[in-house]
Amino acid sequence: MANPPVLASYPMLSASFLERLTGCLRPEAVLVEPHHVLVYECDGSTAFKSTPDAAVLPRTTEEVAAVVRLCSEEKVPFVARGAGTGLSGGAIPSEGGVVLSLAGMNKFLELDLDNRAALCQTGIVNLEVSRAVAGHGLYFAPDPSSQSACTLGGNIAENSGGPHCFKYGATTAHILGLTVVMPDGEIVHLGGPRDTVGYDLVGLFVGSEGTFGIATEALVRLMPVPETVKTFLAPFRSMEVACEAVSDIVAVGIVPAALEMLDRATIEVVEASVVAAGYPTDAEAVLLIELDGAAHGMERMEREIRAICMRRGATSFTVARDEEERARLWLGRKAAFGAMGRLSTDLYVQDGVVPRSRLPEVLVKVSEIAERHRIRVANVFHAGDGNLHPCIPYDGRDADERERVLEAGREIIELCVAVGGSISGEHGIGTEKSSYMGLLFSEQDLDLMSAIRDVWNPDGLCNPGKLFPTSNGCGEAASLPSVAAMPGAWI
Amino acid sequence: MANPPVLASYPMLSASFLERLTGCLRPEAVLVEPHHVLVYECDGSTAFKSTPDAAVLPRTTEEVAAVVRLCSEEKVPFVARGAGTGLSGGAIPSEGGVVLSLAGMNKFLELDLDNRAALCQTGIVNLEVSRAVAGHGLYFAPDPSSQSACTLGGNIAENSGGPHCFKYGATTAHILGLTVVMPDGEIVHLGGPRDTVGYDLVGLFVGSEGTFGIATEALVRLMPVPETVKTFLAPFRSMEVACEAVSDIVAVGIVPAALEMLDRATIEVVEASVVAAGYPTDAEAVLLIELDGAAHGMERMEREIRAICMRRGATSFTVARDEEERARLWLGRKAAFGAMGRLSTDLYVQDGVVPRSRLPEVLVKVSEIAERHRIRVANVFHAGDGNLHPCIPYDGRDADERERVLEAGREIIELCVAVGGSISGEHGIGTEKSSYMGLLFSEQDLDLMSAIRDVWNPDGLCNPGKLFPTSNGCGEAASLPSVAAMPGAWI
Repeated sequence: MANPPVLASYPMLSASFLERLTGCLRPEAVLVEPHHVLVYECDGSTAFKSTPDAAVLPRTTEEVAAVVRLCSEEKVPFVARGAGTGLSGGAIPSEGGVVLSLAGMNKFLELDLDNRAALCQTGIVNLEVSRAVAGHGLYFAPDPSSQSACTLGGNIAENSGGPHCFKYGATTAHILGLTVVMPDGEIVHLGGPRDTVGYDLVGLFVGSEGTFGIATEALVRLMPVPETVKTFLAPFRSMEVACEAVSDIVAVGIVPAALEMLDRATIEVVEASVVAAGYPTDAEAVLLIELDGAAHGMERMEREIRAICMRRGATSFTVARDEEERARLWLGRKAAFGAMGRLSTDLYVQDGVVPRSRLPEVLVKVSEIAERHRIRVANVFHAGDGNLHPCIPYDGRDADERERVLEAGREIIELCVAVGGSISGEHGIGTEKSSYMGLLFSEQDLDLMSAIRDVWNPDGLCNPGKLFPTSNGCGEAASLPSVAAMPGAWI
Repeated sequence: MANPPVLASYPMLSASFLERLTGCLRPEAVLVEPHHVLVYECDGSTAFKSTPDAAVLPRTTEEVAAVVRLCSEEKVPFVARGAGTGLSGGAIPSEGGVVLSLAGMNKFLELDLDNRAALCQTGIVNLEVSRAVAGHGLYFAPDPSSQSACTLGGNIAENSGGPHCFKYGATTAHILGLTVVMPDGEIVHLGGPRDTVGYDLVGLFVGSEGTFGIATEALVRLMPVPETVKTFLAPFRSMEVACEAVSDIVAVGIVPAALEMLDRATIEVVEASVVAAGYPTDAEAVLLIELDGAAHGMERMEREIRAICMRRGATSFTVARDEEERARLWLGRKAAFGAMGRLSTDLYVQDGVVPRSRLPEVLVKVSEIAERHRIRVANVFHAGDGNLHPCIPYDGRDADERERVLEAGREIIELCVAVGGSISGEHGIGTEKSSYMGLLFSEQDLDLMSAIRDVWNPDGLCNPGKLFPTSNGCGEAASLPSVAAMPGAWI
């Protein structure tokens, strides 16, 4: 009994470190009790867990910088966390150390109407940005399903998408400037409203999954609220024809604000939940289409879309008449992930991308994979982008089931890559998919990326264990030929 | 007479190097005669010149890689060049060495209708991309004034803009993937049509001004040709009210495809040239406005824009009735730079950005600067973006005049920064503005950028002397306080 058991993978923090940590911010802003830090062991995906040794609740950029400087000096790993709604384990403290929870840094700092931009602390909830500027007819476009909970900082780290990113682009298209605490504790300001000069460090930072430093303030682009929004719902008797309708709509040159699909399994779950959006339960697929923009041209687009859907065999075509009906049509889509909580204790949401034209066959194969692994899968996805979200409810306490779920997830991703797609559309690589990076990238590509990471984060203390394959990675995935290394492989 | 005079700043290339160089491609594709390489001493801005020791004309990525590998082994500097239409000296061989002219690598390789993308060699002329896909109702959006001559590779290097980038974003928003010859001669493939995973290396490469490697193929995003285009011309009695009209149009939430302004000096030059676009010569400013998109909503926008212009005192409001009239309204804008060739042997086109609301006062101060330095200045600019292009015709053979022009250019840029703007909107930093980088960026920022450059280009042989301030730089500019280093300085 000479040695006490070591609980965390990282040696527990010394008393002197904790004392200095407390000196960086208010004493009540440092959490070290096991039942306090347990909150930070995972994000929205419970499949990946790691407990920090301490969590801190900074309120200012300077407090973040002080904590980071200390961690850098003492060689303690650290990671920033927003609302913890991520789905790839991007904010979990893979090697223990300190979690910086930025949820308290939620201030809307300044509105710049001239440049249609807003300066916010990055702990602000996504939807709060739009709420704060709604009076000026403006909004922040990226709209992840979790937008009423997730924070701007998490959106920046993961380059989050959302239904409306089909038309407006993911988060990277909406970030103009950043205040970043570098991994050595230095504070830098990148970009700005008119900055098109020098290397695009803001664009590089967005989507870097917390491996370059901690963004504490962001200057975000605001867009005018569209004059009109029209929302349609079209149920189909088969997923295949529903996907063909999507391709037809895109092919005629219409750019809907959103093109969302739910399969029969999702419809059933939604309709059996308290939400009950009123989707027809005998449909094999429901397509939710939204147009936004100027009022006039919209009628013609509506006629075109209706004609395409009916020609492809839609069993009906519902047009939301007012904001209330519109909200109801969206209800099922927005509540789908939550409704799946009825099915089991845990939910694994996969995130892969395939060419639009391959959607039907890929969905059939996803069912086959699920059947083979004796798991349920429900599909709700951004059809316009070919961005799949197979949802797999499971019981995390059942180790065998958890293994089967992760294995099915891996097969789904390999399938996406095999048809010319990608290993993630918008949830990021994080902990979950670092071992899949070899499916998309050559060793050369990964070397270049990790050399760039080393410029920002030379000691690797800032969010370690993310993005890059490690020796713990999946050997099979890493040994597959690299798509990116094949000339002309893009097309 | 023991030592022959050394003409270039870089020791002339050895016979063995030249022999190996000839082995990299066809013998006729290697130019070393002084009268042959002289062509490559400058780009569209004749203010900055440096002669290469050799120029090569590769046709394939492999030939580029062979030349670059040789240069890397022999420590010879090299730089890629497209059509040489750049305006910041970005493609000049600052330290001698080898110029790789990619103008012969102009193949349209593959059209991918499913992903609305095209794979092209980067020596293709910008407009040729749109021409090749016009039959499918598609086009490539970035439209620099030089689009009938400039190449895709130059657009990528400089992240080029153009009139329609106000609505559609600069080149970076339209590049999906790249084949890059790294500075050691390795060939890598970055990005792809569905690639949102890992660090955004494509976004980082675009705008890196040739300092990261040589892009030989690009997968570009294509957009549907808008259903309708409407073009309006509004002359004003003062530049101030014309600028106010621009702000009003943007403020009501209309996003025109282009918002271009010409001042009286430009109008006079254009109307005196063979072009004679029919702009009223008694106007102090002419505003060219273009809308594109769906047909129906456009009538209301036209009414709104007309009302704004008339309220702000436009002396007339012309609507182009057909494609021919539309082309005529644009003629003056597109031919403005060329028309200035009438005024003198050389033309210096400055490129700065200011907040839209500061345009009128900045233009007054630009006139004062010109007067003080006894030079002429004509303004033609992207008013929507606040992107100024003061054009200064001069005689490059007159050293004193050249000095005065460059000094006025420097003062204009300092003025832009002083009102919260930027040192370049779309022409890049290149040779011209490397000494101004300290006006925008802190030493920290520049260190971060140069460390990232060193990852790609560790020996600094790939386009040396660009982007970063050197010891030859302008001391005054470098000693000014850094805007980016001031917290909250964005707004």
